[in-house]
Amino acid sequence: MERTLISETIKKVSQKVRLCGWVNTCRDHGKMVFIDLRDRSGLVQIVGDEKLGELRSEDVIEVEGLVRERPANMVNEKISTGKVEIEIESIKILAKSAELPFDMGIELKVQLPTLLDFRPLVLRHPTQKAIFDTQEKIVQSFRSYLNKEGFREIFCPTITATATEGGAELFKIDYFDYEAFLAQSPQFYKQICVGAFERVFTIAHAYRAEPSITTRHLTEYIGLDVEMGFIDSWQDIYQTADKLLKFVFKEIEKIKPEIDSLRGQGKEIIIPETVDETPVLKLREAQKIIFKRTGRDNRQEPDLEPADEEEICKWAKEDKKSDLVIITHYPTKKRPMYTFPDPKDPDYTYSFDILGMGVEWATGGQRINDYQQLYESIKSRGYNPDNFSFYLQAFKYGMPPEGGFCLGLERITQHLLGLENVRQASLFPRDLSRVDVKLAEIKKNNVSKKKK
Amino acid sequence: MERTLISETIKKVSQKVRLCGWVNTCRDHGKMVFIDLRDRSGLVQIVGDEKLGELRSEDVIEVEGLVRERPANMVNEKISTGKVEIEIESIKILAKSAELPFDMGIELKVQLPTLLDFRPLVLRHPTQKAIFDTQEKIVQSFRSYLNKEGFREIFCPTITATATEGGAELFKIDYFDYEAFLAQSPQFYKQICVGAFERVFTIAHAYRAEPSITTRHLTEYIGLDVEMGFIDSWQDIYQTADKLLKFVFKEIEKIKPEIDSLRGQGKEIIIPETVDETPVLKLREAQKIIFKRTGRDNRQEPDLEPADEEEICKWAKEDKKSDLVIITHYPTKKRPMYTFPDPKDPDYTYSFDILGMGVEWATGGQRINDYQQLYESIKSRGYNPDNFSFYLQAFKYGMPPEGGFCLGLERITQHLLGLENVRQASLFPRDLSRVDVKLAEIKKNNVSKKKK
Repeated sequence: MERTLISETIKKVSQKVRLCGWVNTCRDHGKMVFIDLRDRSGLVQIVGDEKLGELRSEDVIEVEGLVRERPANMVNEKISTGKVEIEIESIKILAKSAELPFDMGIELKVQLPTLLDFRPLVLRHPTQKAIFDTQEKIVQSFRSYLNKEGFREIFCPTITATATEGGAELFKIDYFDYEAFLAQSPQFYKQICVGAFERVFTIAHAYRAEPSITTRHLTEYIGLDVEMGFIDSWQDIYQTADKLLKFVFKEIEKIKPEIDSLRGQGKEIIIPETVDETPVLKLREAQKIIFKRTGRDNRQEPDLEPADEEEICKWAKEDKKSDLVIITHYPTKKRPMYTFPDPKDPDYTYSFDILGMGVEWATGGQRINDYQQLYESIKSRGYNPDNFSFYLQAFKYGMPPEGGFCLGLERITQHLLGLENVRQASLFPRDLSRVDVKLAEIKKNNVSKKKK
Repeated sequence: MERTLISETIKKVSQKVRLCGWVNTCRDHGKMVFIDLRDRSGLVQIVGDEKLGELRSEDVIEVEGLVRERPANMVNEKISTGKVEIEIESIKILAKSAELPFDMGIELKVQLPTLLDFRPLVLRHPTQKAIFDTQEKIVQSFRSYLNKEGFREIFCPTITATATEGGAELFKIDYFDYEAFLAQSPQFYKQICVGAFERVFTIAHAYRAEPSITTRHLTEYIGLDVEMGFIDSWQDIYQTADKLLKFVFKEIEKIKPEIDSLRGQGKEIIIPETVDETPVLKLREAQKIIFKRTGRDNRQEPDLEPADEEEICKWAKEDKKSDLVIITHYPTKKRPMYTFPDPKDPDYTYSFDILGMGVEWATGGQRINDYQQLYESIKSRGYNPDNFSFYLQAFKYGMPPEGGFCLGLERITQHLLGLENVRQASLFPRDLSRVDVKLAEIKKNNVSKKKK
C-alpha cells in the first residue's frame, strides 16, 4: 500500500492508510494506548491496544489502520489532523530509539547548550521545523523575486588567495604549499560577474573568525548577496533591496498561521509594517533626529550605535508608520575601498543600511566602477593593487555603473522569529568553541590523526 | 527613457529605444560604422557615423536610437535580432575599456591558461555565457524536481571538526586554538537532516585537496546532494536519481537550440538517450559482460576502470538503446563505512553509480540506519566511534531506512557540453596551483601580511 502523509489523513476518512513516522508521544491508558505519530507533514493520533505500550518516543514505525472521525468532544483544535484518528490494524517497528535525554513532547524546555549538544535530536521538534520552514520560505522568495527581475544565480568560490575586503578575522587554510583564506563574502566575485551577466545573486557561505561568543555572530553563515549593473542612479540599489524585503515579508505572511501554530502560544512571526515610500535619511540627518529626540549627541560619530539604531527605528514607526528606515551616506573612511563616494561630498558614500525594529536587515551601496578610481582607492587604503589584479581586471575592461547589497540569512530568520540567539537560526551553528560538539572535547582524540 | 533589453528590440521596429551594453565588435567603414552591442540578453547591430569609430571592444555605452528593419539581403540569421538594426541618435560612454589582450569577437580562440588568467574578461564571451546558462538550468531543474517530490533544501556547514568520510585529501583550517577541516561532502549533515525532515537536498561547496592537476578535478566544487528517508526498498534511491537525471535532460533539451547557437558550429549539447527502464547491473555482472565483449578480465576488481566504464556504456547503448546504465553492488571494502551491506551477501553493498557515455553521472546508495550496526561498522574501519558521536546521535534516537546520492554540478555541465576540462564548467576554478591567479605569483607579496 502506498504511504499516506499524515497531513493527508484528514482527506481519507473511513479509508485504510499506511503511515510512516516517529512516535512523538505515547500515552498508555492500560487497554487503550494513544500515540502521536509525527512525519514531515505533521502529527496524528493513533489508537491501539496494550501492545503499543512498548513503544517509546522517537521509535520509527510503520502502521496500517483505518482513518476515523473523532467524536466532536474529542477533536484536537491544535493540530490540523485533530478531527481524525487512526485505528491501528498492524504495526512494524523500523528503528528503535534510545531513551531520550529530555522530554521532546509538546513543549521543548531546554537551554541553548542542550539545543546545540543535541542538535540532531532537537531539529526533529516541531518548533525547530517552524524555524527552518521560515528560513526555506525566505530563501525561496528571495530567489523567486530576483529571478523575476532578471537576476542569475551564481556560485562563488569560498577559497580565496587574498582577504576579500582586506579585513581581519580571516580563517587561514593550508593550501598545499601556500596559504589561502576562507572568503568573508562573495563581494569581488559578484562584482566580477556583473561584467558578464549584469544582474546576479548568490546564496553563499561566508566565514568570519569572530573571536568572541555573542548572540549575533556565527563563524560560518549564509549570505544572500545581490549585485546589479546598469543602474540609472544609486537609489536603484536600495530601492531594489527595499522591494525585495517587502516581497519576502509578503511571502512569509502567507505561512504565518502555520508557523505560529507550530511554535505555540506567545511566539508569533514578527512581520515589519511597511509603507510604499520607506523613509530615507542620510546618516547625519538621522543623528540630528536622534539628538533632538534623546539629547544623545552622536552627530560626529561615523556609524549608529545599537541604541541609535533603535531610536531611529522608533522615529520611523512614530512619524512615518514604517518599521523600515533606510540610512544612507556613511563616511568614506568607514566603508570598504570599493564604495562609491558621493561626488558632491566625497567624505560620504553612496552606501546604505536598511534598519527595521532596531536591527540591520540589509547593507549595500554603489561601487566604484571606474578602473583608475578603484586602483587609486585601493592604494589610498594602503593595499598593493597588484594583489587585486584579478578583481581589477573586471574594471579594466569596461564595467557599467553598478552596486549591490547583502542580507544575512540567519539574522533575517532570527529577526522575523524573534529568536534570542542567531545560533537557533542555523541548522549546525559554528562558533569560537563549537563545531557541532565542543572543540575542547575533540582535540584530545582527533580522528584525522589516525589516518596520517 | 526606460532601458530596452537587446532581445526585445525585435518587437520594437520603428520605435525609439534606449539600449545599454558593451561594444562587442566595431567595424569601421569610414563614414559608416557598425557596432555589435552586447547585453545580458544578446547582440544587436548599431549603425552610426564616424564618431563611433573611436569606440573599442568592451567599452560600456548607452545609446538611443531607432529600431529599423534590415533589408532582406542584410538579415543576419545567426543572431535572434538579425532582422533589425539600431540607427543611432545619441550615445553616452559609461566606461572605457583598456585594449583587449586577445580578440573577443565572434570566436574565442584561446587556450585554457588564458581562459583562466583572464576569467573576468573571458566570462563575458557568449560561448561562456552558454556554459553558465546550461549550469543554471541544471540547478533549476534539479531543485524544481526535488521540491515537487517533497524534498527540502538545506544548508550544510563546510567547516567540520573531523574528516567527513575519514578520508585523506583534506584541507586543514586554523580554527582559533584548534584545527578544523573543509568538508569533503555534506554527507553526515544530510543524513542527520533525514531524521528531522525526511527528504532533503543541498547544493553545497565541497573540498578535496587533490594533489595533482587533472582534467576532472577541482579542489572546490559544487555537489548536488540528495538524501531520503522511509524508502520502501533500496531501489527507490537509484530510481529517484535516474528519474531526476531524466528530468534534467528534458529541461536542458528545451534550451538546446539557444545554447547551441551561442556556442557556434560543431559544439552541440549532448543529451543522453534514455529508455523508461534504465538497465541495472551488479558490478560482477557488468564485469562478466565486459570480459565477454573484450576479453579483458577484471572480474575480481573492486571497481570499474575508465575503459570498463566506457565498455559497459557501449553495451547499454547497443543492447538496451540506453546511454545510461546503473551499476550496483560495489564491494563493502571499497565503499564508506555507512554503506548498507546486502543482507544476502554482505561483502557487497546496496550502492550504485549511474554511468552514461563512459562517465559517472551520480553515485549513491542505501545507508546503515541501525545505530548498533553503524557503530560497529565505524569501529571495524579502525575509527573511534566517540569521534562520530554527533553523527551517531541521529541514529541513536531512531532513524528510518534511508539513502541518497550526489551529482557533481561542474562534471554534469562538462558532460552535457562535451567540455575538455572541468575547469571550463566552474566560474572561478581552483586547483593545486591556482586560486584565481597562479599561487606562485601571490606568495611573494601577500596582502594579508600587510594587515598583521
